Amino acid sequence: MKKVKIEHKYAPFPKPIALIGSLVDGKPNFMTIAWFNRMSMSPNIWMISIGKNHYTFKGIKENGTLSMNFPNPDLVIKTDYCGLVSGREKDKSDIFSIFYGELKTAPLIVECPISIELEVVEMMEKEDLVLIFAEVKNIFSEEKYLTNGELDPIKFKPLAFIKPNPEGYYYKLGQRVGQAWSIGTQLLKEE
Amino acid sequence: MKKVKIEHKYAPFPKPIALIGSLVDGKPNFMTIAWFNRMSMSPNIWMISIGKNHYTFKGIKENGTLSMNFPNPDLVIKTDYCGLVSGREKDKSDIFSIFYGELKTAPLIVECPISIELEVVEMMEKEDLVLIFAEVKNIFSEEKYLTNGELDPIKFKPLAFIKPNPEGYYYKLGQRVGQAWSIGTQLLKEE
Repeated sequence: MKKVKIEHKYAPFPKPIALIGSLVDGKPNFMTIAWFNRMSMSPNIWMISIGKNHYTFKGIKENGTLSMNFPNPDLVIKTDYCGLVSGREKDKSDIFSIFYGELKTAPLIVECPISIELEVVEMMEKEDLVLIFAEVKNIFSEEKYLTNGELDPIKFKPLAFIKPNPEGYYYKLGQRVGQAWSIGTQLLKEE
Repeated sequence: MKKVKIEHKYAPFPKPIALIGSLVDGKPNFMTIAWFNRMSMSPNIWMISIGKNHYTFKGIKENGTLSMNFPNPDLVIKTDYCGLVSGREKDKSDIFSIFYGELKTAPLIVECPISIELEVVEMMEKEDLVLIFAEVKNIFSEEKYLTNGELDPIKFKPLAFIKPNPEGYYYKLGQRVGQAWSIGTQLLKEE
């Protein structure tokens, strides 16, 4: 087995892809984002890495709130579009239907199976990036995406992003191969 | 369309799942991790959120280096096992075949299609967690996972993790639904 070095600078994958939303000068704006993650369990804090100059960031800074909206494969064209054009150049406020939760300044996307409103708890500048630490306040979905009251991936159909080389692609989720904190116990039994 | 609130505290998904590795007291140890992400493009910095008490973290602190190894579905049982037991209780040094890159203290997994060695650039304490900022030094793979010199997801078969409810599952990647920075241009043309 011979290992080779891969020169291309890539990111971990497959990634969830989200539409991050904010109100900029009172208008909803959305940007496609893959550089975010959960940081802690309780409180439920997420970390988002975003360029300081992004139009969406202007709104996050103004309001201290943001939304994260998870599209399904039906929304792939609009999702990609929101990553192609800046709100500075194009008004993206009418691409989706909008609703609001408790925060009132975090625009949520009706068409997305899962929409989350978050409140900023800390911002940290790292050269031309800002790390945003934000707490999940509310998670919204619809009955049709649930099974026994829990989100069901078979129903909400998450979109995955993968960019192993200079070209990036959106994928559907495939076959389930095992249950976590469970399938590995067979190695414990072998001991 | 009626939105409902979801009470369960969940994480973004689908997530890449990785085996994070370090040398603890000179022995390779691996832990399954999903809370990590890329932070910046150049330099290629990743952020990892890890509990301070994890055995793997002891090794990262000692050496200032770590590895991130991406398993395929064939490795799902061993991957889950590494998340079930701590290196404090079980020696996990012989579960995988190991190789080393330039860093010498970041144990890399031969069986994983993609293995990355990273050097810690900063650590930040957040209550019982540590945020590790680490720079990607080398990415290793094998010819059989490449097409025209680039990593090919059809060949290396990434494992995705999804935990939309209290139970978590590992999935294969599904069907490709569109190319990023491309499929959305059709909305530009419509304008």
